[in-house]
Amino acid sequence: MIIVMKLGAEESQIQETIKRIKDLGFNTHLSQGQNRTVIGVIGDVSSIEESEVERFRATPYIQEVIRVSKPYKFVSRDFKKENTVIKIDGVEIGGKKIVVMAGPCTVESEDQIIAIAKEVKKSGATILRGGAFKPRTSPKDFQGLGEEGLKFLLKAKEETGLPIVTEVMDTRDVALVSEYADILQVGTRNMQNYALLKELGKADKPVLLKRGMWSTLKEFLSAAEYILAGGNENVMLCERGIRTFSDFTRNTLDLSIVPVLKAESHLPVIVDPSHGTGRRDIVKPMALAAIACGADGLTIEAHTNPQKAISDADQTISTSDLHGLMGEVKYISRMFGREI
Amino acid sequence: MIIVMKLGAEESQIQETIKRIKDLGFNTHLSQGQNRTVIGVIGDVSSIEESEVERFRATPYIQEVIRVSKPYKFVSRDFKKENTVIKIDGVEIGGKKIVVMAGPCTVESEDQIIAIAKEVKKSGATILRGGAFKPRTSPKDFQGLGEEGLKFLLKAKEETGLPIVTEVMDTRDVALVSEYADILQVGTRNMQNYALLKELGKADKPVLLKRGMWSTLKEFLSAAEYILAGGNENVMLCERGIRTFSDFTRNTLDLSIVPVLKAESHLPVIVDPSHGTGRRDIVKPMALAAIACGADGLTIEAHTNPQKAISDADQTISTSDLHGLMGEVKYISRMFGREI
Amino acid sequence: MIIVMKLGAEESQIQETIKRIKDLGFNTHLSQGQNRTVIGVIGDVSSIEESEVERFRATPYIQEVIRVSKPYKFVSRDFKKENTVIKIDGVEIGGKKIVVMAGPCTVESEDQIIAIAKEVKKSGATILRGGAFKPRTSPKDFQGLGEEGLKFLLKAKEETGLPIVTEVMDTRDVALVSEYADILQVGTRNMQNYALLKELGKADKPVLLKRGMWSTLKEFLSAAEYILAGGNENVMLCERGIRTFSDFTRNTLDLSIVPVLKAESHLPVIVDPSHGTGRRDIVKPMALAAIACGADGLTIEAHTNPQKAISDADQTISTSDLHGLMGEVKYISRMFGREI
Amino acid sequence: MIIVMKLGAEESQIQETIKRIKDLGFNTHLSQGQNRTVIGVIGDVSSIEESEVERFRATPYIQEVIRVSKPYKFVSRDFKKENTVIKIDGVEIGGKKIVVMAGPCTVESEDQIIAIAKEVKKSGATILRGGAFKPRTSPKDFQGLGEEGLKFLLKAKEETGLPIVTEVMDTRDVALVSEYADILQVGTRNMQNYALLKELGKADKPVLLKRGMWSTLKEFLSAAEYILAGGNENVMLCERGIRTFSDFTRNTLDLSIVPVLKAESHLPVIVDPSHGTGRRDIVKPMALAAIACGADGLTIEAHTNPQKAISDADQTISTSDLHGLMGEVKYISRMFGREI
Repeated sequence: MIIVMKLGAEESQIQETIKRIKDLGFNTHLSQGQNRTVIGVIGDVSSIEESEVERFRATPYIQEVIRVSKPYKFVSRDFKKENTVIKIDGVEIGGKKIVVMAGPCTVESEDQIIAIAKEVKKSGATILRGGAFKPRTSPKDFQGLGEEGLKFLLKAKEETGLPIVTEVMDTRDVALVSEYADILQVGTRNMQNYALLKELGKADKPVLLKRGMWSTLKEFLSAAEYILAGGNENVMLCERGIRTFSDFTRNTLDLSIVPVLKAESHLPVIVDPSHGTGRRDIVKPMALAAIACGADGLTIEAHTNPQKAISDADQTISTSDLHGLMGEVKYISRMFGREI
Repeated sequence: MIIVMKLGAEESQIQETIKRIKDLGFNTHLSQGQNRTVIGVIGDVSSIEESEVERFRATPYIQEVIRVSKPYKFVSRDFKKENTVIKIDGVEIGGKKIVVMAGPCTVESEDQIIAIAKEVKKSGATILRGGAFKPRTSPKDFQGLGEEGLKFLLKAKEETGLPIVTEVMDTRDVALVSEYADILQVGTRNMQNYALLKELGKADKPVLLKRGMWSTLKEFLSAAEYILAGGNENVMLCERGIRTFSDFTRNTLDLSIVPVLKAESHLPVIVDPSHGTGRRDIVKPMALAAIACGADGLTIEAHTNPQKAISDADQTISTSDLHGLMGEVKYISRMFGREI
Repeated sequence: MIIVMKLGAEESQIQETIKRIKDLGFNTHLSQGQNRTVIGVIGDVSSIEESEVERFRATPYIQEVIRVSKPYKFVSRDFKKENTVIKIDGVEIGGKKIVVMAGPCTVESEDQIIAIAKEVKKSGATILRGGAFKPRTSPKDFQGLGEEGLKFLLKAKEETGLPIVTEVMDTRDVALVSEYADILQVGTRNMQNYALLKELGKADKPVLLKRGMWSTLKEFLSAAEYILAGGNENVMLCERGIRTFSDFTRNTLDLSIVPVLKAESHLPVIVDPSHGTGRRDIVKPMALAAIACGADGLTIEAHTNPQKAISDADQTISTSDLHGLMGEVKYISRMFGREI
Repeated sequence: MIIVMKLGAEESQIQETIKRIKDLGFNTHLSQGQNRTVIGVIGDVSSIEESEVERFRATPYIQEVIRVSKPYKFVSRDFKKENTVIKIDGVEIGGKKIVVMAGPCTVESEDQIIAIAKEVKKSGATILRGGAFKPRTSPKDFQGLGEEGLKFLLKAKEETGLPIVTEVMDTRDVALVSEYADILQVGTRNMQNYALLKELGKADKPVLLKRGMWSTLKEFLSAAEYILAGGNENVMLCERGIRTFSDFTRNTLDLSIVPVLKAESHLPVIVDPSHGTGRRDIVKPMALAAIACGADGLTIEAHTNPQKAISDADQTISTSDLHGLMGEVKYISRMFGREI
């Protein structure tokens, strides 16, 4: 960590700063330039709390505090070199295989989810997605079937053998959803719901963490850090589009985070081209691009009858289009030395 | 609601669309232009769920669906003409008075919060703010004193008579925090934590709802709608900065939402220039600008010793600066026919 | 075009609106709902100027004006069905072939550009890029070699046979740059420099138009429309990253615009993963992703010694890495039925 | 300047870096921590070109290069302590007075501009604005009257005595526009049109530089630096809204830049609440907020008949509303120790 004093900082201020550093248990190294004084902090600075750094920053005679070390540890590839591979009922995520999670935005009925699950299975996708607890912008909108939806998902799993991923929104529901689901999804709006992240740290199911639509790379990895720090090491990082000024897509799918996450972290990286674009017509090309830049998997909204879907109809592809998409995804995956 | 058919839509597709509208219980009005067919939906379309609209949008031969009506109702000034005025222990919010909430980011100790509360009281601010449950980016950072912090806040209230506003982050803590606090704060990261919003709809304390840093106007008002729809009508809307590319401030304080919220809604509007800028040096001018464009109040981070603050030291002003700020805020408020 | 009257608009206001429409030479169709009146405008509304639409919007008793037709024409696939294929010295852009433009950010010397050009040629890339007139944030920074740089580029072309793309920044330089260059580049900061776009509409060289880092899809296509409307039909559209809050890349590369541009327009689409990310370490994966989602070509910053590059050193790959990249780009292009 | 080496950088790499610094004419100071080596660069580092810094950044074994000094000089308050006050025909900008520039977006006819100018004069505003060369998104839209428009502006000046501000878009038009106008405006789309900025550095008229809608603080001040470095010291900085995801305004007016510009620079700061919001209904509150946070002036779109305005009708207020606005602006200005 490096502390840059303001121009004209006095000797007494330099000494006070050095004293504060030593009080924290670190050594210092003083560098006095022509104009500026710079104080190096020597020791394992990763143990310094961010708030301590902020206090230095807030000191009137300090210009800048530069901290090179990262605010996260367990999620980092520095901490764990090899890829985390998550195994669920024979499906491997983060290894050589590409995982595809597909299904409707919302579980609407037992028949609906079973019919879709069968098509998902047939297409070659390996995990069934579907929402029972739904985050909806307006309280008037359909909020999901709740536990009944979870039961329907379980029936669809029994029929097809596909493991289930579904969202959990409330700390009080983590135990309940864990009874039914194979993967617990954290939605974009809850990426920094720390109470929920802590609860998931104690859960015994893998977590699919969606990037907050406002989230920087550091915040995304720090959110995952909450879950790992709590004891749950099975986290998948999911890019699903960020908020920008651009209006031809619902969100701007930030594929450049894929290779950066793969370098920074050992966790599997999933891409959601459905929410990431909000446009059914470009789900396929963006899915292929995701594989091309190194994603470990996809999550795709698909429905036997998209126009009748209860939510997200705009971005949901038909299950017959899912078959076509899966064909191309398989082909491209092989080109990149992966397989489904 | 207006449905615009794609160029070249066939007669059978037009008829099918009309049938779908009639099945929902509405009448239609057909307008066939030189190139395009437009179908007007006649009746009280505000009762149509957003997901129904999405399904029309997702229909291949429909170009666009235009809905003029708003996704929220109870928060709207159309629903309630006069300003909502919230009264807490003699403090009025949303009426003629300007409310100022001030205090530290985090409750650090009994002595700290009492000392600050006394200065807040002396400055003329009328509500004490301070965090006991803290949303922190990294799990390594200090997470707040929890219930002990609430107890210290209560002591500070007993000493000064200042009502308390503090954040609640978990549905499971709403009852607990309600025992101590006079106003329940929803942080920016939880603006679309719908489980929490629903729980707050059942609470008997007013809510200070901070705008999500990614939130549009509609999403902000829709989040407030969750609380009002649940039965709690005492909601304050707080602008606290949004995420943009601009990097000289931590967030971009969007003051233009103040007059728009006042026109769209009857709820009080509060501005947070501390988080909204992340820069102590511009808290005062932005506070004055907030009053000038019509805000009903401010929330300001202040500390007896900002450099020793556990969090947000960068943006926290000293309590002695708070005295200066309050002097100017009082003066300007009077110029605008308001008072403190 | 559809005009939605405000709630409670009076009969005289409706009549006035109808008169205004008729004065513009259009017919109307009136639809009176339970609450609202909607006026359809019948005829070829694409001829109505945007400013006329704004005047309707500014009318106090008009709620909204909905215009489905697009603000551009010549660039649109509705106007021209088949792909525009641009041919330059045997290099085809926008057809079956993938074009790769490679070279340094800045032309530094005759030796430098020739040495790099030879490596570019060897790698299999087909066009040489390099800046002679440089847009630099600070006036202190190196502004490019000007005409001397153009002469060096021409020498490099003579040595290698590679056509040249280089930036033009001033209307007064269009003729000069056209003498040397095969493709005229418009930089991101000049995407809405309409004086320059008009001048390029009269030029006899193809144009590589970079998307403004603030530009919507409509604005991007409208900028291209300026050039086509001026008579120059050979325009390439180049995605090069947009400004967002995200800070792990210099810009956010918006690959989702690639398939949308291909659907909306007949013009070739190029992707610049160098400027689009600002990170040398992810240029290759993003280049492959660009091909995977349908781009017609790439522009890549490459230098024989990136650490000595005069500008953009951060994002410039070495020419030896360019060889590796080209190998993979060729392989992936074939997978997608393209070739280099 | 501080150079942070990567973890595990070798001794030879450290030595090479030190040599590069010495070759640039600077001394170094080495600080070897437990994990990292940091090299301080000693001397007047403000003379180092940004591209040199980038080359260090691009070196594989260098982690980070931290440069505290600013990329601009002449615009900085470090360079010139006292406010720049620009005087035009008795109107003072940047001193005690608040300047208000008002008028239509576009000069439409001699009668129109004279009628509006008279109202502007009556309202107490002191400068007349109006566009003769118009940057329009679509080539189909009205592009302005050109030199004829300048002549009409001059007539309006002769009638009212109001100095004129109008936009220049092309390097070739700077001389022409300078003959008519008192202030040359650079539009938001041209903020980084460096050819134009350089030409304006040689002009003998003051410049109103509008912030690019994508521009950071540093880029904005660096753009102004181009003009000052060219010899023209009379530059006004104008905040006019930035591009964000927020959609209830056309742009997001970033008032927080006002106090920061006033601290960083000696140049006058103007706010444009018309373009900055795109909403006529909030022009007044945002104008007052601009004064409250320290702006030196305003630019306001006003028209005798906004609904008939050729462009920007949405955001243009009527001249009768301008009278009301000016009354409040005068009142508030006095409260802040300013006057009109």
